[in-house]
Amino acid sequence: ASQSENVSCSGEENGTAQNSRIYPARSCPVQRGVSRSLLCLHITTSVSLPAVGSIMPEYKLIYFNARGRAELARWIFAYSGIPYTDERFENDEWPEKKKSIEGGKVPVLRVDGHTLPQSLAIGRFLSKKAGLVPEDDLQAAACDALVDTIYELMTEMYKFTFPEKSEEEIKKPKAEYFTTHLEPFMTRLNKRLGEKKWFVSDKITWGDLAIGMFFGEMKGLYSEKLEKFPSTTCPYQQS
Amino acid sequence: ASQSENVSCSGEENGTAQNSRIYPARSCPVQRGVSRSLLCLHITTSVSLPAVGSIMPEYKLIYFNARGRAELARWIFAYSGIPYTDERFENDEWPEKKKSIEGGKVPVLRVDGHTLPQSLAIGRFLSKKAGLVPEDDLQAAACDALVDTIYELMTEMYKFTFPEKSEEEIKKPKAEYFTTHLEPFMTRLNKRLGEKKWFVSDKITWGDLAIGMFFGEMKGLYSEKLEKFPSTTCPYQQS
Repeated sequence: ASQSENVSCSGEENGTAQNSRIYPARSCPVQRGVSRSLLCLHITTSVSLPAVGSIMPEYKLIYFNARGRAELARWIFAYSGIPYTDERFENDEWPEKKKSIEGGKVPVLRVDGHTLPQSLAIGRFLSKKAGLVPEDDLQAAACDALVDTIYELMTEMYKFTFPEKSEEEIKKPKAEYFTTHLEPFMTRLNKRLGEKKWFVSDKITWGDLAIGMFFGEMKGLYSEKLEKFPSTTCPYQQS
Repeated sequence: ASQSENVSCSGEENGTAQNSRIYPARSCPVQRGVSRSLLCLHITTSVSLPAVGSIMPEYKLIYFNARGRAELARWIFAYSGIPYTDERFENDEWPEKKKSIEGGKVPVLRVDGHTLPQSLAIGRFLSKKAGLVPEDDLQAAACDALVDTIYELMTEMYKFTFPEKSEEEIKKPKAEYFTTHLEPFMTRLNKRLGEKKWFVSDKITWGDLAIGMFFGEMKGLYSEKLEKFPSTTCPYQQS
């Protein structure tokens, strides 16, 4: 039991140097950036997994030693308890690593012999395996649309969050981001969630994990921006 | 029958001024930007549609009077013969129109009372209805990843294709786009397609429609860039 308290979903904060770690099933509950009681739900929800002995693909997720565009997949693995190898590399290893990645971009997911690129394709694929995609097509599409919008917001945020520019240069785009992009989205999301527990239905979906993942990261960086939107970000927990 | 020859999938070229047109089933074969025999296949493939009298949702696609991010959905409608309303507006109508669109972005798809945003969520939703999503999860994910990559390439291309910048300013990013982004992708795609007819399996998928849609548009704009990649763009037809 103590294992789950010590293993972080993302390793960059605790300075682990190993490139690859294997997460056994259920060893990594979602501990950081938790939104809307995800943590509690993670523990109390029963996820159907194949019985021991049945065939489950070997999953290996390959990405930088950072959250970024691999983090949603890690949350899905963590939530569902599906075992996987979380292969991480440092920035200076990338030029060499890149040669082994068809298309030259990460994250990629290795599934037995197959390689799947594109973070959202990976997320959707794993979410199907984990029962996190609604069966209703329109609800599944609402999840897709939500996650697309969150990824657009992430892309905009990264432009000034990890910039190679001066504080002065990013001042204006950063201010515009919050007023033009983030606040209108959060206003809609907050209203839509209201007193509801989950975004599309009465069950958790990968859309909810994406909300938790994104606003968790956002809250760590810009907590004052989120105070006005309690339904979107509360009860948030950081451990 | 003559109707299908006169109706274009996208209306901007023939200068139609009407904002809204209803496409009856099968009136709009894929006529422009056809790749890998899509045109022939469109005509010869039988698509299962609900019998007359059964309940089919009313679809309305809302976008600018342009191809852009609505075009893939129009291809899927055209390919499958599902009837829909193609509501288009001119640039100067957008500020007023925007007020009626939750989220303030287009395209959106109205499905009976529901509104679905995000072009790829719309495309995937319609593709499921049209039988253009593989049943195998990994193949479905390969389609998703392909379409994501094509949309990234479209986003990059639009930066210099419809710019508010001078020819001099876009010269460098445009050159870089072709060498850094487009050619490596087309090399991989060309190799992967080889002598195969379709991208993921022995059946057409929405990934193939996305290839046809994107390279059709690209060929219209930059035909000289595509000559080296016959599997990706041949037999291409423009009518």
